[in-house]
Amino acid sequence: MTKLRWGMIGGGEGSQIGPAHRLGAQADGLFSFAAGALDANPEKGRAYAQSLGIAKNRAYGDWQEMLAGEQARDDRIDLVTVATPNNSHFEITKAFLEAGFNVLCEKPMTMTVEEGEEIVRVARASGKICAVNYCYSAYPMVRQMKAMVAAGELGRIRTVVANFSHGHHAAGDDAENPRVRWRYDPAQAGVSGQMADCGIHALHLASFILGDEVRELSADFASTVAGRVLEDDAMVNFRTERGTVGRLWTSTIALGRQHGLDIQVFGETGGFRWASEQPNQVYYHRLGRRVEIMEKGEAGLSDEASRLSRVAIAHPEGFPLAVANIYVDLAAQLNSGAPANFPTAEDGLRSMAAVHASVASAAERGVWVDARPPMFR
Amino acid sequence: MTKLRWGMIGGGEGSQIGPAHRLGAQADGLFSFAAGALDANPEKGRAYAQSLGIAKNRAYGDWQEMLAGEQARDDRIDLVTVATPNNSHFEITKAFLEAGFNVLCEKPMTMTVEEGEEIVRVARASGKICAVNYCYSAYPMVRQMKAMVAAGELGRIRTVVANFSHGHHAAGDDAENPRVRWRYDPAQAGVSGQMADCGIHALHLASFILGDEVRELSADFASTVAGRVLEDDAMVNFRTERGTVGRLWTSTIALGRQHGLDIQVFGETGGFRWASEQPNQVYYHRLGRRVEIMEKGEAGLSDEASRLSRVAIAHPEGFPLAVANIYVDLAAQLNSGAPANFPTAEDGLRSMAAVHASVASAAERGVWVDARPPMFR
Amino acid sequence: MTKLRWGMIGGGEGSQIGPAHRLGAQADGLFSFAAGALDANPEKGRAYAQSLGIAKNRAYGDWQEMLAGEQARDDRIDLVTVATPNNSHFEITKAFLEAGFNVLCEKPMTMTVEEGEEIVRVARASGKICAVNYCYSAYPMVRQMKAMVAAGELGRIRTVVANFSHGHHAAGDDAENPRVRWRYDPAQAGVSGQMADCGIHALHLASFILGDEVRELSADFASTVAGRVLEDDAMVNFRTERGTVGRLWTSTIALGRQHGLDIQVFGETGGFRWASEQPNQVYYHRLGRRVEIMEKGEAGLSDEASRLSRVAIAHPEGFPLAVANIYVDLAAQLNSGAPANFPTAEDGLRSMAAVHASVASAAERGVWVDARPPMFR
Amino acid sequence: MTKLRWGMIGGGEGSQIGPAHRLGAQADGLFSFAAGALDANPEKGRAYAQSLGIAKNRAYGDWQEMLAGEQARDDRIDLVTVATPNNSHFEITKAFLEAGFNVLCEKPMTMTVEEGEEIVRVARASGKICAVNYCYSAYPMVRQMKAMVAAGELGRIRTVVANFSHGHHAAGDDAENPRVRWRYDPAQAGVSGQMADCGIHALHLASFILGDEVRELSADFASTVAGRVLEDDAMVNFRTERGTVGRLWTSTIALGRQHGLDIQVFGETGGFRWASEQPNQVYYHRLGRRVEIMEKGEAGLSDEASRLSRVAIAHPEGFPLAVANIYVDLAAQLNSGAPANFPTAEDGLRSMAAVHASVASAAERGVWVDARPPMFR
Repeated sequence: MTKLRWGMIGGGEGSQIGPAHRLGAQADGLFSFAAGALDANPEKGRAYAQSLGIAKNRAYGDWQEMLAGEQARDDRIDLVTVATPNNSHFEITKAFLEAGFNVLCEKPMTMTVEEGEEIVRVARASGKICAVNYCYSAYPMVRQMKAMVAAGELGRIRTVVANFSHGHHAAGDDAENPRVRWRYDPAQAGVSGQMADCGIHALHLASFILGDEVRELSADFASTVAGRVLEDDAMVNFRTERGTVGRLWTSTIALGRQHGLDIQVFGETGGFRWASEQPNQVYYHRLGRRVEIMEKGEAGLSDEASRLSRVAIAHPEGFPLAVANIYVDLAAQLNSGAPANFPTAEDGLRSMAAVHASVASAAERGVWVDARPPMFR
Repeated sequence: MTKLRWGMIGGGEGSQIGPAHRLGAQADGLFSFAAGALDANPEKGRAYAQSLGIAKNRAYGDWQEMLAGEQARDDRIDLVTVATPNNSHFEITKAFLEAGFNVLCEKPMTMTVEEGEEIVRVARASGKICAVNYCYSAYPMVRQMKAMVAAGELGRIRTVVANFSHGHHAAGDDAENPRVRWRYDPAQAGVSGQMADCGIHALHLASFILGDEVRELSADFASTVAGRVLEDDAMVNFRTERGTVGRLWTSTIALGRQHGLDIQVFGETGGFRWASEQPNQVYYHRLGRRVEIMEKGEAGLSDEASRLSRVAIAHPEGFPLAVANIYVDLAAQLNSGAPANFPTAEDGLRSMAAVHASVASAAERGVWVDARPPMFR
Repeated sequence: MTKLRWGMIGGGEGSQIGPAHRLGAQADGLFSFAAGALDANPEKGRAYAQSLGIAKNRAYGDWQEMLAGEQARDDRIDLVTVATPNNSHFEITKAFLEAGFNVLCEKPMTMTVEEGEEIVRVARASGKICAVNYCYSAYPMVRQMKAMVAAGELGRIRTVVANFSHGHHAAGDDAENPRVRWRYDPAQAGVSGQMADCGIHALHLASFILGDEVRELSADFASTVAGRVLEDDAMVNFRTERGTVGRLWTSTIALGRQHGLDIQVFGETGGFRWASEQPNQVYYHRLGRRVEIMEKGEAGLSDEASRLSRVAIAHPEGFPLAVANIYVDLAAQLNSGAPANFPTAEDGLRSMAAVHASVASAAERGVWVDARPPMFR
Repeated sequence: MTKLRWGMIGGGEGSQIGPAHRLGAQADGLFSFAAGALDANPEKGRAYAQSLGIAKNRAYGDWQEMLAGEQARDDRIDLVTVATPNNSHFEITKAFLEAGFNVLCEKPMTMTVEEGEEIVRVARASGKICAVNYCYSAYPMVRQMKAMVAAGELGRIRTVVANFSHGHHAAGDDAENPRVRWRYDPAQAGVSGQMADCGIHALHLASFILGDEVRELSADFASTVAGRVLEDDAMVNFRTERGTVGRLWTSTIALGRQHGLDIQVFGETGGFRWASEQPNQVYYHRLGRRVEIMEKGEAGLSDEASRLSRVAIAHPEGFPLAVANIYVDLAAQLNSGAPANFPTAEDGLRSMAAVHASVASAAERGVWVDARPPMFR
């Protein structure tokens, strides 16, 4: 097996997300880090890329240079990760897809629904991979839940409750804290604060596990910290295509919750609960039996859950390896051509449509609105 | 200290609630069980009362007989508990209040808002106690949370999230199971299923801890089990008088949740979380510090929390003694005349108003409605 | 059903244990509090007893007066609880048994093995009940575990691990704190500190659940706080009559552990874990299956577990009602004559023998010693 | 930064430990996998190495060939990991050290104390790194505990309790299950079963966190499954050089425990608890305060804890990245020459001495024995 060639745009020195992707791509020895345009400052980006072992002529100053440079090579990168500021995702992803590259885009894939539809069209036309980094979907036990729902082990799903609520913006020091402030400023964050930042992870997770999509929703947004224009606490009620009832709460002022992503799924014959802070267990309640603790690595799990776990039962695996699992699946598809189970441009588009629908609903005091992208109606 | 005289209506042989009240009233030696009309069947009620040690002439056949009998006595009961089927609470409570008795009524206090307002008026006119058994409010650590909020330790409260969701009606065997079926039948349960049964406990708990009341709300109801007319899964968004954002989820199909009452309160400078299945701990997060585990019985708790705890730190106290704490407070007020901190007819009325508001909102796809009883607007 | 008549010696104003017994005896309406000698100070004891509703002529000044007074009555008490300082348990228990009273004695039943054997002889000769308040054995889920072991559901038991370790004496302020100091002073506490105070609870719990007795043991004692003569941290390895391996750790300096009693039982086909701080759940692992969470109140529990639970599944019941369950069983035997399942003088004696054996072993650097009372060898 | 060159002996196709080391070495991009002798079967080893991207001429048939091959190169590997069967660790590690290679040896480093002393001498003479893979010591929160103990935040440490008990050998199917059988067979496993396999991890963890070493110990071994010669359940009491009391329980029949490594440390002014199944939290109790939940990634942690964490607070990191942290520290020392904080040959030797001391003590019914290697006495 030769390693695939991988490049990254963004994720420069000091970023949080850059190391996560570098570890994700390299942990399993599947990709070699071959090219990068890592920083908004071309010189810093070139220097940092070389410090990470990238050859000088593939340590690019910006994404345009990288696009041109890689297009010109026979050994062009097999995959590029886009980890730049949110409002540049659309332009870069589109350009690389059109040039025939496979792309893993950080979330949110775009800022608008229209852009999202455009990416879907471009990706389909290109025949290339356009993946979106909804990495929570790659935890082994999330795959296990998806497999169980798909197999009908819980019966028809009645209700799903997904939360992504933390307390890391509770200080209310927006004025002095630019890392927080921009998230509630429409000029920088777009139409939505926490719903666009975290809520979409929870919503994607619900859709992913259920194998079902949000059809309509009603939202209640609040800006609980004085001065915030965008919401820092939101509740979204929804219904899926198959009629499942959905509840989604997302907040940034929930002191006491550290990461705060969790999901509960309730079907006719069983229910389960999973939380990102304890990702290797699922609490599973079969109707008429006791609650059982399912463990990552236990015998009898689904193929997907087994394939994405690296160590034995009760040896915990965490967030960085969930990101790595996205790369495992990308490599699998790149190497075999057979489709793997990672989130795609369609998922990225649906998220954007749901965010915009939430904003529209909240603006009208919770009126129910269609949450689907126009092209999927 | 002489014991207070206590009587009960309802709670006959085989009922779940009767033993809880008998234990609650007697556990601390504050009340003697002096009179009762315990069963819809007069003969069974008289026999059962005597088997529990009640004198023959105070083992009544029905509540009217008990009312007449007790009124005629010099040593009439100091308190009567009404634990009959829901739709009789109004009539009995009203009659005893008007006759000058102190009453502890099981929830729901009434079936309609109008009845609730009538009870409030009658109770006020009588000068007697009309308490409602929102027993979760009497857990020591619930009192602790209330005291901390009142003292401003969490700052202004931004958001409260209260859930009361369990899975005990998930089987969907309503047709064969009359104990479940009636709860979703408007002819027996009234306008609401789970919201009226459990949701109001969570709503009262939120109001109690916050020292604030629900002003308006928007509800999303679902009947997830085929054939159910009334809701078995509901989400209510609300705002309090002081502007706190509220989220309340209540369900009966949430497999994996056993009791399922929990609450999270998020203020400017702190947040906490409490769950009824682990009632002796509060997870408390002060801004900028670590999450701390507060323990019932620890040094430095509020007077209310200390007063209502019977054993040392980490010796768990559970549900029956929370009910007993309602009786402790009733005895305190009866003995001293000074007001104690139990839920009253006003709380019972507010609950009914909120239930009816939820039903109205849900019927109009979540339109926001005033949740206050007309007499409190 | 008429109430049984109950009296108490010790447990005066300000004691921790007195209220626990009063609640335990009265919670279920089984006993009326008829007589008491509650305080070392006769006047205070008489006054306090009357304040609790005891008739003046049964509010005694000391236990000798109470013994004489009750012996002379036709309506003598049916049960007396001995809750005096440890070194008086033997004398009082013996005297009441010899006079034909049923006794519930606080632990430790005696200070020496010889005294323990004497109590066993006297109790047997009297034909009366001599119970010892190992109240943890009366939790519903402890009874459940015992029933499952007895039924062979776990197969032969290989190992039991019981801990009773807390951190409440970690401050090391013995010099200024008499409530702590006496426990490490042989003149007041006897031969053992924490092993006699808490370790015996864990040891009894292990024996009770296993239905098996300690045969031999090896102990390692430490006095980790400077100045303590008696042990504040002890490890005891043991073997039962049936060959089960036992491990028991008990400590008073274990900061972070609040109550700290827990037990794990490992058999050929299953294992479980129970902790006193979460007494309504058992984590049960059947060989080849997942860990399951057993819940007090769930369907299908043993008769003993069901009988001793008062409220529905997931409504927690705590320590005071475990004490009450001892009284429930005492009342059952007193009313029916049929033997119930409470700890007896034999258990109290075995505990004393084990404590003394531990002390002897620790003094000889862990030599294995016979842990059985001479009369049971 | 250029990558360091890394090689591995053992860890062939299908092994559990091989992937853990490959991920550990490569996750952070610090090492390139340059050479390997991966399998006892030379042909399989060569083929597997090449399938993992190793050049043909560095895909060796056995360790002797690899030693010769690498010695002859200018670009010889910077580090070799020894992950072969236990009884070959000594020979291979010694040979590579003597040839001037840096070595990371899997545990146990040797089978005997004499071999352990020899490795220490050879390592010292070589001036090269000889590390042992006690990977639990590399969890961020384990480093945090060590830093806090070293800084005196808990005061003098009174007692440490370390367990490594799981239930994965409870089936008792040794006869049919060779993966279990060999562990209890002295011919293959040596003098000890579970103490040598898992107990030493817990013992190392205790020593590592305390910065203190075991001086003497007393052991109680049991073979609870019929037919096992070596122990499957062991208790070791010990004392450290500084007088801390130690308790260590290790078992393979503890059904209900999945991974089962945990540690509790109790000092004069604080105590904490950490468990490998939830490795990102420490429960910390400062005397006179509440239990606090420390979180990996929180502000204010020690440099060591911060340095070894890759993602933000509450994003879990698990076992594979703890192994990776060993490589992070090895790379740090290799690159800078400054000593880093990984377990060394001295630790490997001490473990062997403690295992042999435990065996000797257990054989003499728990007599206390010196646990130190002769060369450190």
